[in-house]
Amino acid sequence: MNKFLDLEKELEIVFKDKNLLFQSFCHRSYLNENPQFGLFHNERLEFLGDAVVELAVTEYLYKKYPKQVEGVLTSWRAALVNSKMLAQIAEELNFGEYILLSRGEKKDAQQKTKSYREIIANAFEAFIGALYLDRGYKTCQKFIEKYLIKELPHIIENKLFNDAKSRFQEISQEKRKVTPTYKILKEWGPDHNKYFISGVFIGEKIIAKGQGSSKQESEHEAAKTALKKLKWD
Amino acid sequence: MNKFLDLEKELEIVFKDKNLLFQSFCHRSYLNENPQFGLFHNERLEFLGDAVVELAVTEYLYKKYPKQVEGVLTSWRAALVNSKMLAQIAEELNFGEYILLSRGEKKDAQQKTKSYREIIANAFEAFIGALYLDRGYKTCQKFIEKYLIKELPHIIENKLFNDAKSRFQEISQEKRKVTPTYKILKEWGPDHNKYFISGVFIGEKIIAKGQGSSKQESEHEAAKTALKKLKWD
Repeated sequence: MNKFLDLEKELEIVFKDKNLLFQSFCHRSYLNENPQFGLFHNERLEFLGDAVVELAVTEYLYKKYPKQVEGVLTSWRAALVNSKMLAQIAEELNFGEYILLSRGEKKDAQQKTKSYREIIANAFEAFIGALYLDRGYKTCQKFIEKYLIKELPHIIENKLFNDAKSRFQEISQEKRKVTPTYKILKEWGPDHNKYFISGVFIGEKIIAKGQGSSKQESEHEAAKTALKKLKWD
Repeated sequence: MNKFLDLEKELEIVFKDKNLLFQSFCHRSYLNENPQFGLFHNERLEFLGDAVVELAVTEYLYKKYPKQVEGVLTSWRAALVNSKMLAQIAEELNFGEYILLSRGEKKDAQQKTKSYREIIANAFEAFIGALYLDRGYKTCQKFIEKYLIKELPHIIENKLFNDAKSRFQEISQEKRKVTPTYKILKEWGPDHNKYFISGVFIGEKIIAKGQGSSKQESEHEAAKTALKKLKWD
């Protein structure tokens, strides 16, 4: 397990309990061939780490984007926290060098199969679970911001997320060959406390209305309702 | 907003920032009729609180049941964290008295419709979001243990969860009119480091095998594989 010292150096993190670190990299297949390992596999740590990643990303989005509506934040979070993205981050962190696998799974690893990508994404979550137990939430937050949330600007700029508005546009283009448009139908209230009703249209026809305390929120609500009305959700 | 003093007293929690508390009870419909309210609705707080509840329950299960496999803990968590259960807890906490709704939604509230149950479950999550921002994670943990996790013994005793073994049993009884059975096919290793292979059978026929470092884990894995093999998942 000496190689894990290199990982700690690379990540600038020292575990008090090294077993937690080792365990977080142990896939269930490894135990089968190495019953002397003496530690459990990483699935319980993954269960814990998954919830830590979720909260850290959620808290970041909540605080960093105080004006953004929940539906959009949810779609940004989904674009960050999914096994494809987590596998990519784990690869960047060189986790593949450390993962403990059976000989059979190692062959998959060389071919970077889907099953391998899932294993390495799960190891990322398990590592965060171990880090949470050993070093606490704040250390996890910093780690997750540095290595995962760094992808967010790219996601937002290139619209690599799937919120109600983009879903409605995509399906509308596919099924109706038309890009939907939005129009403010009503707005009222003083500047600091405005309220909006927007309509979403396909061609001349209004499909749904949405309300909200920003233009963006009202459009998002309209798209959500439109998806439901047309049974496209 | 004076009535919220009663809620703080009942819950023995005092918010530093009362606006967070008020906001967590504000449904989007209320703003529509009360534009002078001056606060946003509770959906962003719900987005945050949902992740806090998830972590608090996950951490509790992880620590309290060190021998339990991830698949079972996941099914226990799902039985605790869902809108039906959260609505029930919110009702017990009398949140219905405090929720800020439009006149239309209030009618629903009297009839305890599904939409109302969702509103009140969401308010529970939003309240936790507000509590997290105002009082931190530890306070949320205590609150969630006291009011939500208290349901866990009842769930476990009465098997009100839906893990792979119970799903396989249910579908097998429905489709094949037979209760599946489990058999240990192989076990090896010293007492402190045992390894098991179990088989799950419908009648005399073996459907799938599963491995694990406890009998229970190997059975759970066998059921998971069986669900996949028979395309019952």
